Amino acid sequence: MIIILKSDIDEVQIKHLLEHIESVGLQPHLSRGTYRTIIGLIGDETEISADRLRSFPGVQDVVPVLPPYKLASLQAHPQPSVVDVSGVLIGGGHLGMIAGPCAVESEDRMNTIAASVKQSGANLLRGGAYKPRSSPYSFQGLGEEGLKILRRVGDRHGLPVVTEITDPRNLDQVLQYTDMLQVGARNMQNFVLLSEVGRTSTPVLLKRGMSATIDDLLMSAEYILAKGNSQVVLCERGVKGFDNATRNLFDVAAVASVRHLSHLPIIVDPSHATGRPELIPACALAGLAAGADGVHIEVHDCPEEAMSDGPQALLPDQYAELAGQMSQLAKLLGKTISQVGNAAGDPA
Amino acid sequence: MIIILKSDIDEVQIKHLLEHIESVGLQPHLSRGTYRTIIGLIGDETEISADRLRSFPGVQDVVPVLPPYKLASLQAHPQPSVVDVSGVLIGGGHLGMIAGPCAVESEDRMNTIAASVKQSGANLLRGGAYKPRSSPYSFQGLGEEGLKILRRVGDRHGLPVVTEITDPRNLDQVLQYTDMLQVGARNMQNFVLLSEVGRTSTPVLLKRGMSATIDDLLMSAEYILAKGNSQVVLCERGVKGFDNATRNLFDVAAVASVRHLSHLPIIVDPSHATGRPELIPACALAGLAAGADGVHIEVHDCPEEAMSDGPQALLPDQYAELAGQMSQLAKLLGKTISQVGNAAGDPA
Amino acid sequence: MIIILKSDIDEVQIKHLLEHIESVGLQPHLSRGTYRTIIGLIGDETEISADRLRSFPGVQDVVPVLPPYKLASLQAHPQPSVVDVSGVLIGGGHLGMIAGPCAVESEDRMNTIAASVKQSGANLLRGGAYKPRSSPYSFQGLGEEGLKILRRVGDRHGLPVVTEITDPRNLDQVLQYTDMLQVGARNMQNFVLLSEVGRTSTPVLLKRGMSATIDDLLMSAEYILAKGNSQVVLCERGVKGFDNATRNLFDVAAVASVRHLSHLPIIVDPSHATGRPELIPACALAGLAAGADGVHIEVHDCPEEAMSDGPQALLPDQYAELAGQMSQLAKLLGKTISQVGNAAGDPA
Amino acid sequence: MIIILKSDIDEVQIKHLLEHIESVGLQPHLSRGTYRTIIGLIGDETEISADRLRSFPGVQDVVPVLPPYKLASLQAHPQPSVVDVSGVLIGGGHLGMIAGPCAVESEDRMNTIAASVKQSGANLLRGGAYKPRSSPYSFQGLGEEGLKILRRVGDRHGLPVVTEITDPRNLDQVLQYTDMLQVGARNMQNFVLLSEVGRTSTPVLLKRGMSATIDDLLMSAEYILAKGNSQVVLCERGVKGFDNATRNLFDVAAVASVRHLSHLPIIVDPSHATGRPELIPACALAGLAAGADGVHIEVHDCPEEAMSDGPQALLPDQYAELAGQMSQLAKLLGKTISQVGNAAGDPA
Repeated sequence: MIIILKSDIDEVQIKHLLEHIESVGLQPHLSRGTYRTIIGLIGDETEISADRLRSFPGVQDVVPVLPPYKLASLQAHPQPSVVDVSGVLIGGGHLGMIAGPCAVESEDRMNTIAASVKQSGANLLRGGAYKPRSSPYSFQGLGEEGLKILRRVGDRHGLPVVTEITDPRNLDQVLQYTDMLQVGARNMQNFVLLSEVGRTSTPVLLKRGMSATIDDLLMSAEYILAKGNSQVVLCERGVKGFDNATRNLFDVAAVASVRHLSHLPIIVDPSHATGRPELIPACALAGLAAGADGVHIEVHDCPEEAMSDGPQALLPDQYAELAGQMSQLAKLLGKTISQVGNAAGDPA
Repeated sequence: MIIILKSDIDEVQIKHLLEHIESVGLQPHLSRGTYRTIIGLIGDETEISADRLRSFPGVQDVVPVLPPYKLASLQAHPQPSVVDVSGVLIGGGHLGMIAGPCAVESEDRMNTIAASVKQSGANLLRGGAYKPRSSPYSFQGLGEEGLKILRRVGDRHGLPVVTEITDPRNLDQVLQYTDMLQVGARNMQNFVLLSEVGRTSTPVLLKRGMSATIDDLLMSAEYILAKGNSQVVLCERGVKGFDNATRNLFDVAAVASVRHLSHLPIIVDPSHATGRPELIPACALAGLAAGADGVHIEVHDCPEEAMSDGPQALLPDQYAELAGQMSQLAKLLGKTISQVGNAAGDPA
Repeated sequence: MIIILKSDIDEVQIKHLLEHIESVGLQPHLSRGTYRTIIGLIGDETEISADRLRSFPGVQDVVPVLPPYKLASLQAHPQPSVVDVSGVLIGGGHLGMIAGPCAVESEDRMNTIAASVKQSGANLLRGGAYKPRSSPYSFQGLGEEGLKILRRVGDRHGLPVVTEITDPRNLDQVLQYTDMLQVGARNMQNFVLLSEVGRTSTPVLLKRGMSATIDDLLMSAEYILAKGNSQVVLCERGVKGFDNATRNLFDVAAVASVRHLSHLPIIVDPSHATGRPELIPACALAGLAAGADGVHIEVHDCPEEAMSDGPQALLPDQYAELAGQMSQLAKLLGKTISQVGNAAGDPA
Repeated sequence: MIIILKSDIDEVQIKHLLEHIESVGLQPHLSRGTYRTIIGLIGDETEISADRLRSFPGVQDVVPVLPPYKLASLQAHPQPSVVDVSGVLIGGGHLGMIAGPCAVESEDRMNTIAASVKQSGANLLRGGAYKPRSSPYSFQGLGEEGLKILRRVGDRHGLPVVTEITDPRNLDQVLQYTDMLQVGARNMQNFVLLSEVGRTSTPVLLKRGMSATIDDLLMSAEYILAKGNSQVVLCERGVKGFDNATRNLFDVAAVASVRHLSHLPIIVDPSHATGRPELIPACALAGLAAGADGVHIEVHDCPEEAMSDGPQALLPDQYAELAGQMSQLAKLLGKTISQVGNAAGDPA
């Protein structure tokens, strides 16, 4: 950590600061410049809080040298992590191809969609049973009934399932039915929820908050890792932008940034990132080309009847076409898409 | 609601859309322009979902005419609401002057700070017992012990208290000790939490999320109102900006925007908005001049020992000076600052 | 255009508005809803200003139905435009691969870099002679001497050249030496400059401003087109974001958005978008995968000696490796990279 | 300046870097930490470029300690500057109250507006003759005829005048007619224009660009100061935000930020910041309360006939009411509003 002192700091204030630094077991290294004096800290800087140092009189700024997360960092784990979702691998060259409707609406609909996306090449099925909706008057999901449908349909088609958790009080229930827990963008800094999913051993899909920096995202992952759950997959789904041309601003460079900072897999979600079906294929391919470990896409067979997020869903045929292009690109990039067997209907 | 059709929509698609509109009891009003055709909807547009309409083939865009919230709107309640926090009024010309440390750290410290801010003119005391921290390794608050300290200190100095709720499972406990519940910026779209505080009758301080629009903020208030709790005070605390000169970007115009849309009181929090003590006084006064119903300020008697957010706290003397300026400005603006009696130590 | 009226508008105000609309030759189409009344305009809405309509008493909002640009729109020109830069094609399946240093520094250095990028597969050479620098104390470019070097080196290696124009008074001089004019991000709304380059017939590379929406970008292109120059190539180079992890936020979805709105080619500039060499390859490939018509990359053989923007330049070897990957991806996407002959040193 | 080295830098790279630093006359001060090594630079750091240092192999980041501007800094000039616009003072306790229409449209209209705002207390008259418009099809201003009208009307009512310069080729002409030159937000980084107005001795109103940081704004001021013109007034006019509730995001904290960094006066422009007349008064008062040295407001007597920006103009009566409130607030804050005599029509 580097402490930059104000030009008018006096010697008493410097002494006070140096004593504090030494009191926590660090060694201060003072450099008096022509215009400013700085202090470099030698030792384990996790012992000291940058915020506390900033509060000392005479301190202008504090520049951390190490990232604030540890377990999520490449230093802690230099090789890419591979997350295993009931047989489907994500990370380290394996792509997680997640597809399905925003919300579970009925078993028939879920079956139709699952059959189609499985055939197109998806390897994981998504569907929300507890929906976080910005209006209290909107459809809030089928609850446990939705979870049961998702589980049965996933099993039928050989697709491990992903569903969102929004309430720590539902965690035990949701864990009975799902292979992967999703923490949504609006809950990325719901630290209570992060701690709870961290206490499980179920893989977690952690979506980036709409105004979260990469460091914020990795700190939220750190919450989960610190509680003992190492099965975390990050997801870039667009951040808040100033242009209404798209629902969010798809930050494709985040994929590459994360790769240089963390061992955790990161996938992209062009459905939420753009909110416009006609832009989804371009952004899905861009995400893979940038090195993403998978793609999350909302698919619905009749968007006009969808109970949520219909306008951003691809039709099954559109998904099939895109999946073909993604598969070709994956081949060029040397990535593989693993599948689990189809318990009920596997033709083999 | 207005539906703008694509230029290449065909008559079958138009018919399909008109039938849907009529099926939900609305009357479509078709205008065929030279370049585009539009449909205006006559009737109660809350019966129909803009998202669903956007999913119909041939629909280019849907423009809502009414705001998505109802109970929070001026239409529902044309006069400003006044929220009563155990005797301290906020709204309708009454200012809520909230002050105190980020976190409750000890009874002594809390006492010192409370005595000082009460004398300076604050009428509500804040202090966190459950702290949402972006690092899992940071101080997370004293929990119930912190709540007890806050309650005793508030009572001693005649200051109703405000504290943050982060977990629905703690709600009953927190309600035993506090006069007002705070929902923090990171939980503004934690709909589970909003629903739970909506089921109480305790006043709620709802802070704007870092990337929440005014409409998003009012929709979150609507969640609380829709569950039956009408005692909601909004808080502008800065949104995400691109300039690191300040921690967040203080959106002072939001105060005036809300005034034209909603009856709910809105206060400002220049401590979180700027993150820099030297900018807090200017922004506090700006907030009042823009019409805010109060000011929330973090005060700590020794920022370098603060267990969280030290660098953005004012010293008690700095708060006293600012409170004097705010009081003068309040007088010019014709606003009043109500106080409750001092149960234990009131000199009268 | 659709005019949404305030709920309290009176009949006199409505009459006043209708008369104005008819006075400019348009036909108003009034729909009185349960809550709000709207007016649809039938006829050529370019005859009327949305801003002026918004100024009428009783008007709440005006929603344009058509885009504000005409010549740049797909309606005006449904097929993709192909821009010819002295033999190198951009658009309609042809990729413009622009490479070179930020600034022209010396003929030797320029020669070295040009030889290398040509061999790697670049087909256009960039180099600034008039540099817009945010500090008045920074290197401002070699001026005409730089233009001469760029011209000679481009000719020697069979690379048409691109250079920035910053001052309308230099236009005649710059035109003597360059094959393509660049208008930089900071000048995207320098309408004086746009008008002047619009009066030439030289291809223009128009970079998106840091806070420009897609509509803003297309309106700036419209300025050039409206003055008679149809040879415009757009460039996405990152917009202002809130995360310092990258210099700007690379908006890869803009490539796909533009494709749905305009016939103009659009390329990407991952050098300025990210400002970090280690992220450039991922973003270059992402841009191509999203459908970009080319890639603009800064290359320097000794970044530590570069007179501007050194930290974001690729080394020639790094560019060579990336160019190989881009070439493979281009093949998969069915795109071609045209080259012009090498006037001086063509081995053939 | 502080250089943070990568953890894998080798001794040869460190030596290479140290030699470079010494070669420009600076003294490096190496601190080897447990995890990272840093180098502090002692001496005049303006001799070295942070960008160039960032380009050295093994350098992770460079943290400047001093601001990049000099003449604009408080270090260079610790007392607030007072700018004299033909007798009207701005800065150091004097408020510049600028009012007038967006564009000069006719002498009659200009006269009506000027008479009204002068009586309300404005001390400077604005009006555009060369208008930068985002559409090439919009009204572009009356040119020299507009300048003549502005000059005559300003003289008649005792109001020095402000008008925008957009083209360096018009500078001599504009200087014949105006008391203050405005550089608009879209030209804030048009360095050619900044240099040219820097060569005059006419006061300059420099508006903040839509995505400019405070440092960017001060660097643009530095351009003008470095060319010899010290008469610069800054203007906060809203930055790009994500919420369409307002046209821009009014960054009122910028007023206080600038006060801690620079001696230059700064005024606010709530007309452009909000784009909504009903929010202008709140933001004007907020700006003054935050310490602004003046307020710029667009006033038009018939917004529906305005040739540009009608929807954001106040009516003369609305301005009169606001001016009364601003005057009261100015008194509370101890600020004065100077007036020049009325050459032609002064009743005295």
